[in-house]
Amino acid sequence: MTGDASSSDFAARIHSSFDRQAFMRTVGARLVSVEPGHVVIEWPFSSNLTQQHGFLHAGVVAAVADSACGYAALSLMPRGVAVLSVEFKVNLMKPAAGEHFRAVGKVIRAGRTLSVCGAEVLAHHSGKETTIAIMQGTMMAVRDNASLVD
Amino acid sequence: MTGDASSSDFAARIHSSFDRQAFMRTVGARLVSVEPGHVVIEWPFSSNLTQQHGFLHAGVVAAVADSACGYAALSLMPRGVAVLSVEFKVNLMKPAAGEHFRAVGKVIRAGRTLSVCGAEVLAHHSGKETTIAIMQGTMMAVRDNASLVD
Amino acid sequence: MTGDASSSDFAARIHSSFDRQAFMRTVGARLVSVEPGHVVIEWPFSSNLTQQHGFLHAGVVAAVADSACGYAALSLMPRGVAVLSVEFKVNLMKPAAGEHFRAVGKVIRAGRTLSVCGAEVLAHHSGKETTIAIMQGTMMAVRDNASLVD
Amino acid sequence: MTGDASSSDFAARIHSSFDRQAFMRTVGARLVSVEPGHVVIEWPFSSNLTQQHGFLHAGVVAAVADSACGYAALSLMPRGVAVLSVEFKVNLMKPAAGEHFRAVGKVIRAGRTLSVCGAEVLAHHSGKETTIAIMQGTMMAVRDNASLVD
Repeated sequence: MTGDASSSDFAARIHSSFDRQAFMRTVGARLVSVEPGHVVIEWPFSSNLTQQHGFLHAGVVAAVADSACGYAALSLMPRGVAVLSVEFKVNLMKPAAGEHFRAVGKVIRAGRTLSVCGAEVLAHHSGKETTIAIMQGTMMAVRDNASLVD
Repeated sequence: MTGDASSSDFAARIHSSFDRQAFMRTVGARLVSVEPGHVVIEWPFSSNLTQQHGFLHAGVVAAVADSACGYAALSLMPRGVAVLSVEFKVNLMKPAAGEHFRAVGKVIRAGRTLSVCGAEVLAHHSGKETTIAIMQGTMMAVRDNASLVD
Repeated sequence: MTGDASSSDFAARIHSSFDRQAFMRTVGARLVSVEPGHVVIEWPFSSNLTQQHGFLHAGVVAAVADSACGYAALSLMPRGVAVLSVEFKVNLMKPAAGEHFRAVGKVIRAGRTLSVCGAEVLAHHSGKETTIAIMQGTMMAVRDNASLVD
Repeated sequence: MTGDASSSDFAARIHSSFDRQAFMRTVGARLVSVEPGHVVIEWPFSSNLTQQHGFLHAGVVAAVADSACGYAALSLMPRGVAVLSVEFKVNLMKPAAGEHFRAVGKVIRAGRTLSVCGAEVLAHHSGKETTIAIMQGTMMAVRDNASLVD
């Protein structure tokens, strides 16, 4: 995993990009930790985000895990690029029940163009934290598009 | 692909279950077609659902595709079961730009417990429709839980 | 899906690259059709390729599907590049029982660097053909490595 | 992760099942460690297993990772069941070059029917070990089929 010396300001760039993700605001998500190759996002349960049984919708779980992966990848990319999701796969191991949730994204391999990332999503339920989902995905550094910068 | 003769009322069950997905309401999604093993959901662009570049967040795209897959699977399951997502994988082929979007979910193999599904997500942008994402996933019929019924 | 006018010789390049895949020889696989964005590979059952219950090993099914996807992608790439698999996901829908097998790979979206592909694997068993697995994956055109050309 | 007290003989069952995987013999793979929920398999490079550039074929990498995941899952299942792969996803992070290889499979969540597993594949190349691929997948305990037992 290789960082970029000149990207010591990555945390500020990531906070600023995260703040532009309107959907994270809709979810009520908060960026709680940004380290090189490692990002943590937390959010509360909300009855606006549920599927038919009252659990969080799998797509919401995937969305926050995807943002955690994307920003973990961006933390190791040089300035001037944008990060986009190429693909991800999520295994939903338990229904997403709980009072609040946490997605931990990390870079498994940082490449010049493609970065492979993993995320774990945990539910905090009645004082206990359980892993409810895991993600494995690919994030891309977009360089050739002046209108896309993170 | 095998249906269930007694499930001729599947469309009503699916509409009722979909209406309980609060997150689909948050997205503004509408169930526009329910056929055996084939479900279509549409939704408009909304600035509350975007990522940092103003496209729809990949997790929103995945969420609607997941609902389309889940209900396509449920349409071939007998009464009295619930459907849950086991896992899904999505490839994001183009940024989700457009005025409105459509997810088409279909069953590729219906099993007693597990159903393999695929979905395609299309964006309608300036009068042109393009496929922006595809999903491949596994849905599960849950039988042993009286509190979960769809 | 966009081809490349100058790549009208793609079929010859693909046959030559396929012939260098020693593992396809070990499997007994044969390239039976090469069209732009669409490749078919067939192979016979062999007791050297089985898992513990006597079915073909899932990895063998994945391997041939991966080769079909890779060459479908290569068929739409310009001369001088090499194709590598970035990632793939396979759903194994039925045990791989049968006398012979067929993998059909096709390009779903051809990009300059990344191509999204899908494959279907069919088993021919007692006169009946059934889909036993589907794959969704990403193939990459490698340009910057003179030692890698397909 | 829950084991089964009566399955203290799991290692013997797994070795016996592995020995019936003819394809692992074709690959030259050896089961080097079997612990509850954790299995390690090693194999040497072989020129019979390559893709067109002389690296191991991605399908071979996936095959051994899949076997490692399957046996990690089986180690936590009760006697009398068989294990089958439902689906897996692999990210290929580096070309599979090296003298020998190791797949480490582990259970992330053991369920009664479905177990979610992860695997890492490492290449030993010129005295250095690197992670070349990761897998995330679902394994299934098959109970209702007397002819399938592991």
